Amino acid sequence: MKLYGAPSPAPNPRRVRIFLAEKGVDLPETLVDMRKREHKSPEFRAKNSLGQIPTLELDDGTTISETVAICRYFEELHPTPPLFGQTALEKAMVDMWVRRSEFVLMTPVSMFWRHAHPYTAALLTQFKDFGESNREHVASAMRWFDRELEGRDYLAGGAFSMADICLLTTLDFANWIGLETPGTLANLRGWHERISARPSAAA
Amino acid sequence: MKLYGAPSPAPNPRRVRIFLAEKGVDLPETLVDMRKREHKSPEFRAKNSLGQIPTLELDDGTTISETVAICRYFEELHPTPPLFGQTALEKAMVDMWVRRSEFVLMTPVSMFWRHAHPYTAALLTQFKDFGESNREHVASAMRWFDRELEGRDYLAGGAFSMADICLLTTLDFANWIGLETPGTLANLRGWHERISARPSAAA
Repeated sequence: MKLYGAPSPAPNPRRVRIFLAEKGVDLPETLVDMRKREHKSPEFRAKNSLGQIPTLELDDGTTISETVAICRYFEELHPTPPLFGQTALEKAMVDMWVRRSEFVLMTPVSMFWRHAHPYTAALLTQFKDFGESNREHVASAMRWFDRELEGRDYLAGGAFSMADICLLTTLDFANWIGLETPGTLANLRGWHERISARPSAAA
Repeated sequence: MKLYGAPSPAPNPRRVRIFLAEKGVDLPETLVDMRKREHKSPEFRAKNSLGQIPTLELDDGTTISETVAICRYFEELHPTPPLFGQTALEKAMVDMWVRRSEFVLMTPVSMFWRHAHPYTAALLTQFKDFGESNREHVASAMRWFDRELEGRDYLAGGAFSMADICLLTTLDFANWIGLETPGTLANLRGWHERISARPSAAA
């Protein structure tokens, strides 16, 4: 199989790399040059008509897109250590926190990136006022995660999971585009430090 | 257990109702009056600090939020008929199409609803130009789903799944807020007619 990806700071390919590192699976990425818009080329769109990475191509040519769907596929192939939970409740909790990382934090982060960041301004039409308004949503999302992390080592409960991977990559991307995590958010900062200290975080 | 929900046109509680109807599970909703902002009350926020519905409360007081996470919990409790796939590839495909329904279609639909619809204008500050710009993204998403549905009975492959539920409720909500499915999109319209003919769609 082939895993199409791109180097950091792209948060989605990194989510898969961290996931595979935690699983101990060695699958080097086939790099797609986003600066050259290779992900929007007809060749790549034949693999993923949305022109997005990561995309996983199986040996029979079947392709799987969407980061979490790709990781879920690897979870089935390599169940140990479990990163999507084991019991019904654990599975629901991991899914809930994956989705909350995406909807509560990643959505305003992407909207800021898409509509207010100078890098994107060169590529696409922006609605700048709207884009800037997402600073406040991002700040409020960070405060909310900080409250929710009170007394917890990991986002979705007692064990490291896909939810921690999603929040980590989102937070790092937010920081990279200038949306910093305030120093006052001790729970979120402490959690970030613990998760970043895992060898997988270097992926 | 208690399932907190709200009647149509709210798309998220409906996703859970359709899911339970397909599973043959009888669990009446405990209604939360969104017009009275009951979902934002301190009592409800003690169950879901984001103040969102649906939320599932287990008998020991544990709560699960996020529609797909709630459905995934029920999938574990009632595996038949499978609605999240059975093999590794099926599970990945259902997840991929659930997420594509949400990211490709639901995101611009919600942004239009949040920033351009008169109902929301009365409640929140809107960025109208940005909101209106989502009409085009919704139209383009519908055309993309139409192309992808060519020759397929169901969104995620050979069987009805959670992905069909997600696309159905999103499309119906889009139509309800004035973002209609063009008559020219025969694949999408045909799929919509087939899925809407299932008894569960009335849920």
